[in-house]
Amino acid sequence: MSLRIGLVGLGTIARAQHLPAIAATDGVALTAIASRNATLEGVANHRDVTQMLADVDAVSLCTPPQGRFDQAMAVLRAGRHLMLEKPPGATLSEMAVLEAEAARQGVTIHATWHSREAAAVDAARDWLARTRIRAIRIDWREDVRKWHPGQDWIWQPGGLGVFDPGINALSILTALIPDARMVGADLHIPANRQAPIAADLELDAGHPIAAHFNWRVTGGETWQIAFDTDAGAATLSEGGARFTAPGIQTAGENREYARLYARFRDLVAAGDSDCDLAPLRLVADAFLTGRQHAAPAFEDHS
Amino acid sequence: MSLRIGLVGLGTIARAQHLPAIAATDGVALTAIASRNATLEGVANHRDVTQMLADVDAVSLCTPPQGRFDQAMAVLRAGRHLMLEKPPGATLSEMAVLEAEAARQGVTIHATWHSREAAAVDAARDWLARTRIRAIRIDWREDVRKWHPGQDWIWQPGGLGVFDPGINALSILTALIPDARMVGADLHIPANRQAPIAADLELDAGHPIAAHFNWRVTGGETWQIAFDTDAGAATLSEGGARFTAPGIQTAGENREYARLYARFRDLVAAGDSDCDLAPLRLVADAFLTGRQHAAPAFEDHS
Repeated sequence: MSLRIGLVGLGTIARAQHLPAIAATDGVALTAIASRNATLEGVANHRDVTQMLADVDAVSLCTPPQGRFDQAMAVLRAGRHLMLEKPPGATLSEMAVLEAEAARQGVTIHATWHSREAAAVDAARDWLARTRIRAIRIDWREDVRKWHPGQDWIWQPGGLGVFDPGINALSILTALIPDARMVGADLHIPANRQAPIAADLELDAGHPIAAHFNWRVTGGETWQIAFDTDAGAATLSEGGARFTAPGIQTAGENREYARLYARFRDLVAAGDSDCDLAPLRLVADAFLTGRQHAAPAFEDHS
Repeated sequence: MSLRIGLVGLGTIARAQHLPAIAATDGVALTAIASRNATLEGVANHRDVTQMLADVDAVSLCTPPQGRFDQAMAVLRAGRHLMLEKPPGATLSEMAVLEAEAARQGVTIHATWHSREAAAVDAARDWLARTRIRAIRIDWREDVRKWHPGQDWIWQPGGLGVFDPGINALSILTALIPDARMVGADLHIPANRQAPIAADLELDAGHPIAAHFNWRVTGGETWQIAFDTDAGAATLSEGGARFTAPGIQTAGENREYARLYARFRDLVAAGDSDCDLAPLRLVADAFLTGRQHAAPAFEDHS
């Protein structure tokens, strides 16, 4: 019998990724939706998460991080399993409370990091394990107007700003280099906003790691991590979909979300949880130690 | 035989608290000092921590958090036990690396929170366990010119600003209420500084918790936590030294640092570590989710 999943938040990411991934994954079935302003044919439609709980074994939360804690607690307190779109929450302390509640209830909590499931991340990990890294440079650049049009929550406190895409890079980094630590950060915050539009990070893991996040780049995205190693230069590009190193060229189909739902299904079956907060911890550290710089005001429509 | 301790950083807190506490504690002995610009009679004096390691079993770090990671790693890699004055480090990610290294080396790491050892904290915990809390209000107010004169590092990124004293309140709070989570924060940052001079925090633990940190208050300190409970109003004041509740008045001698060194000695003897990062996590969450407000420029000498 399939794991009955309810989806909360029927926005862009839910429609583009979650719905097709659930449909493509054995052993999981979408049985309900909770959304304040959207409906979906063929499943039970509810206004909020508490009304949905009777129809499901598990809930997948795709809502913005700021309002998510109460929804997540309602799910766990009802003894339902919980899957969280990235970022898993607005704060590290609320995640600690959720982890403790999941353990108390004996249910699965899964903080997902979809970029870790990109097609070439495993190939990069295998190749890097056989050499010595000298330095890493991350470039994560995109046009916020193209990728987050009208998303006001992303500019609010807790909305992360350019760290919303940047945390994808940090999720891949910490999958490859678990002991990366934040050393310093420069945060560029528009005069009329509360979150950074660009950030330059200095990390260390026995070798330097530089990261450059920029939301003001038009004309195409750059989502890549470049490795300087004893075995030569290597690059994980296209958000983790392609890996290039001396003698190697790997690329594959995007199955990120299907892999997440398969993993969630397996965690539930095994009675395990997976709640790695290392990417969010690095973001919190960047805010904690970052030097702030005033950037020009940013208007969404120009 | 006593645990031979080396102290790094011979500033105000080391002279006022650490030296007398070590002298007053059985089973520990100060055998060395590392300081760039101060010396102490009767012990080995060194310029930096690496030169000191041959003379000691354990190191107590009292340096500012920003430059502490390399010192701490040198201590652990040499197989020496490590005790950390608060705040334990500049970032959560560096603390994760230090914890992993201590485990790898089989040595003790002790992140200390001296305010948790204040005379009346245990009495408050015992009394609160027998009632239901409705709300908590923290007021932590002092004059930065009196308590941190000329401490430039405290205003730098990673220096925490008003959270340097405020984290003492949060360390007591998390000792009493482990599941407190940050909901929102207002951070007041002087135009010429990188760290807040005042902060208003909203936390939650099933009941509201408000915290007000202010460094601009002259004419006396307020370091208190007020509890509204089903059994009436109670107050933990004087930084945790005094507890007042219906029918109860507790106050005692300040033995905070002697208790820390006794605990460190016992952790080493038992082969255990104690590295609770909950207070630093709440501070990181306040920066992560905080709304920033411009405050008037602050000059140290007025």
